[in-house]
Amino acid sequence: MGSNSFRLVVYGFEKGSWWALTDEIREAVRVSEGLGAEGELQAEPMDRAMHTAAVYAAFCEASGIDEVDAVATSAIREAPNRDDLLKAIKKETGLKVRVISGEDEARYGWLAMVNSTTVEDGYGVEIGGGSAQLMRIEGRELEDTCSLPLGSVRLTEAFLPSGKPSNKELKAVRRHVADELEEVDWWPRKGGRLIGIGGTIRNLAAATLKQLDTPDIDVQGFVLTRDAVEDLIEELADKRASKRDSIPGTKPDRSDVILGGTLALATMMDEGGFKEMEVSEAGLREGIFFECLLEDSDPPLFDDVRRESVVNLAHRYRTDDKHVGHVAKLSLELFDSLGEAGVHDLGDDERELLWAACELHDIGVAIDYDDHHHHSAYLILNSGLAGYTSREQVIIALLARYHRKGDPDVSSLGDLAKKGDKGRVRLLSGIIRLAEQLERSRDQSVKAVEVSVPDGKVVLRPKIRRGDPCVSLWSARRNSGLLAAAVDREVEIDEG
Amino acid sequence: MGSNSFRLVVYGFEKGSWWALTDEIREAVRVSEGLGAEGELQAEPMDRAMHTAAVYAAFCEASGIDEVDAVATSAIREAPNRDDLLKAIKKETGLKVRVISGEDEARYGWLAMVNSTTVEDGYGVEIGGGSAQLMRIEGRELEDTCSLPLGSVRLTEAFLPSGKPSNKELKAVRRHVADELEEVDWWPRKGGRLIGIGGTIRNLAAATLKQLDTPDIDVQGFVLTRDAVEDLIEELADKRASKRDSIPGTKPDRSDVILGGTLALATMMDEGGFKEMEVSEAGLREGIFFECLLEDSDPPLFDDVRRESVVNLAHRYRTDDKHVGHVAKLSLELFDSLGEAGVHDLGDDERELLWAACELHDIGVAIDYDDHHHHSAYLILNSGLAGYTSREQVIIALLARYHRKGDPDVSSLGDLAKKGDKGRVRLLSGIIRLAEQLERSRDQSVKAVEVSVPDGKVVLRPKIRRGDPCVSLWSARRNSGLLAAAVDREVEIDEG
Repeated sequence: MGSNSFRLVVYGFEKGSWWALTDEIREAVRVSEGLGAEGELQAEPMDRAMHTAAVYAAFCEASGIDEVDAVATSAIREAPNRDDLLKAIKKETGLKVRVISGEDEARYGWLAMVNSTTVEDGYGVEIGGGSAQLMRIEGRELEDTCSLPLGSVRLTEAFLPSGKPSNKELKAVRRHVADELEEVDWWPRKGGRLIGIGGTIRNLAAATLKQLDTPDIDVQGFVLTRDAVEDLIEELADKRASKRDSIPGTKPDRSDVILGGTLALATMMDEGGFKEMEVSEAGLREGIFFECLLEDSDPPLFDDVRRESVVNLAHRYRTDDKHVGHVAKLSLELFDSLGEAGVHDLGDDERELLWAACELHDIGVAIDYDDHHHHSAYLILNSGLAGYTSREQVIIALLARYHRKGDPDVSSLGDLAKKGDKGRVRLLSGIIRLAEQLERSRDQSVKAVEVSVPDGKVVLRPKIRRGDPCVSLWSARRNSGLLAAAVDREVEIDEG
Repeated sequence: MGSNSFRLVVYGFEKGSWWALTDEIREAVRVSEGLGAEGELQAEPMDRAMHTAAVYAAFCEASGIDEVDAVATSAIREAPNRDDLLKAIKKETGLKVRVISGEDEARYGWLAMVNSTTVEDGYGVEIGGGSAQLMRIEGRELEDTCSLPLGSVRLTEAFLPSGKPSNKELKAVRRHVADELEEVDWWPRKGGRLIGIGGTIRNLAAATLKQLDTPDIDVQGFVLTRDAVEDLIEELADKRASKRDSIPGTKPDRSDVILGGTLALATMMDEGGFKEMEVSEAGLREGIFFECLLEDSDPPLFDDVRRESVVNLAHRYRTDDKHVGHVAKLSLELFDSLGEAGVHDLGDDERELLWAACELHDIGVAIDYDDHHHHSAYLILNSGLAGYTSREQVIIALLARYHRKGDPDVSSLGDLAKKGDKGRVRLLSGIIRLAEQLERSRDQSVKAVEVSVPDGKVVLRPKIRRGDPCVSLWSARRNSGLLAAAVDREVEIDEG
């Protein structure tokens, strides 16, 4: 129960295997609208809050949710009359609302960040409706935190008119935010790694993504630059508040307050010396959920976020662990041997993308066997793979897309492309395609591959665990063309 | 084991719930290449056949397939030396190959057609590599059938050069096909309903689809016109055989023989007076599979192909039967009541599409709850829903796409669009959206809806089975806008 919206989110999970968001209702309650002089909640917003709480409680009851955790944040926490609201909710709906402290709020935000990105040392920001949380992370631990009254609803009500704001008004917001930041002595001056979460930031990332040439992907892992934030401010400030949802990616029920939050973010980046921010879709609610999912770990952190997010996705689509694990093993062996032999000069980054693509190459079978390479790519692009940048997600999707056939078309990378992508994706696709065929019978009968490179050729000698390797050899020979083209050498596959 | 290719297809199923193709290998064996004077199989093609049979047998063994049915058709059946090949296969691989008669072949083709289309009375054609099967269907039964030596490989070898064919050569093929057809006294002169199956026809449909502006859909249900077939012939004949795979949609290993099969089809349509043909993706292999899946029915036919294909798709993605069934019930009640009250004039066709969309609107949750309306549409477009035309499939996908939010954009129908689609899709989406919200708590607590239309308004009065209807009423009221816009009236939702 936040200042701007109340959200009901439902998670399904099997511990140690997978978790996923399975249902969600969102209501722009605006409980903090028109707060009184002492921060009292007003009658109308309280009515809306009551009603929404009743609806959510009825939903949980009707859909047989096992465990409900109702959580309220700053707007309610700071209201002197909060108990009136909470008692009424308890009485009418049976919901026991847990009012969490600013510290808890920061802790959940931190859990969301470190469990959805690879950050070890850095800073975090979450912009809510009422307040904004700042964090400093060191060795994945939460080192410092503070909650400032710089939420988007609060700043909008205090500083911004409903029409187009003047430059003076915009400057006043920035100055106010900068003044508040003065108090935070650990906020840096020279930048570092910055992670952003929360609805306002997700919305800004979505709006920026829409203006780029990229495949249709989640904002998870998107890198929002300082310049892009300024561009958005310009665009937002040029419209009346009620018209700001005409900017693609902007949610209608957030459009009238988003400018306040964006100015806060821009100032925080400015003052901190940050040129860019990594966006995560996770937030307070995931933080709360992770605490439950990972209750056996202290602190509740995934060991390796990238690995966990890939395995989670694979398990959601009931992939055959043995088969995909073996395709990964063979692919990495090929990658390493070819690298050692000087046939390519790709490094650990590409090696890890290859691994992820191997684990995920077959998830599309859950949609349909026909064209499952396309479906795997679709699922990967839509999954918001935690710990990977947008660019990495698209490359993993491309490797899955081309694991069976076709010459990789990397044009879909669009604005995310880098020099050498064509060669990179062809080589990695060539490897996974060959490994998949060596494991075509799905029984791990080809247990390894020896690589040698005589006379400018590449010779592969499969080692057979058992049985007749004819399917594998037959399939591999007819699918070695892409690798051969990628390394510009003949690829020969010996009898096992 | 056909003349052109050997295919290994694996089906997974739970009887009475779902079935799906789960794996497939295809190999262009060309066993009938260069047949001897008496139709003897030659040494090299027999070697290829042996080798492929061995690979397939090893695959079945390694992947733990429960039941294997190896079937050979005309090329092998008609070869005087077929037993040499079959004995060798038996000895080397353990596979007992079942050589089926021309009648069996037609019977399986018929089973594929009547179980994947809504044909009651009509004609069927399947063009294979060696032979072509013609069928006459009456009351869903196979009334007449014959197998003619007019397969694409056979016609190509007998009549067509490897370079560009001359007009004289093209005419000679048509004349030969027409001569053979003379013998089939039940082949019509004045057309009727024609269904086409088999690889050649699927390939022609795919090539035609690629030239149209449509979403990316399967060829299942696509209507191939006589004119489109002539256009393809012109395009194919203008290229050397080896270059014909440059036509998008044409498979490389079929490109050198496809012209022969296309000429056969064109002549069959001409002589029969058919202006168009409905394409089904099902074929001999599905016919064989249906005989097993439906072994408790005699003949093994689905009662209602459209209903079965929708329910099959829903079950594949483990949809919540109770919930989607109830959304369907409420939607159809709304549709009927609004129709009776004169608020719309849509008929049974639209009513059935509405039903199908209701059953399928949530399948996208299997991909991700976020944006599941998009995912449902993606799955529907990729499923090749049997019994529905391409246009109907796209409309069902659109209704699923817009069941939660947004104003329907029907432009994706492209060349499949008809006048009035915008209004049609808005009304149906408006209905499903409202029904979904009335069932938002997923517990069927709103058991029905009474509709009245006083003073140009639409008033809905939900009937409550049990519990507190607040979620449903709340959700429905905030989602009645699309229906209101579609019927251009205020929509009011009373207390239950």
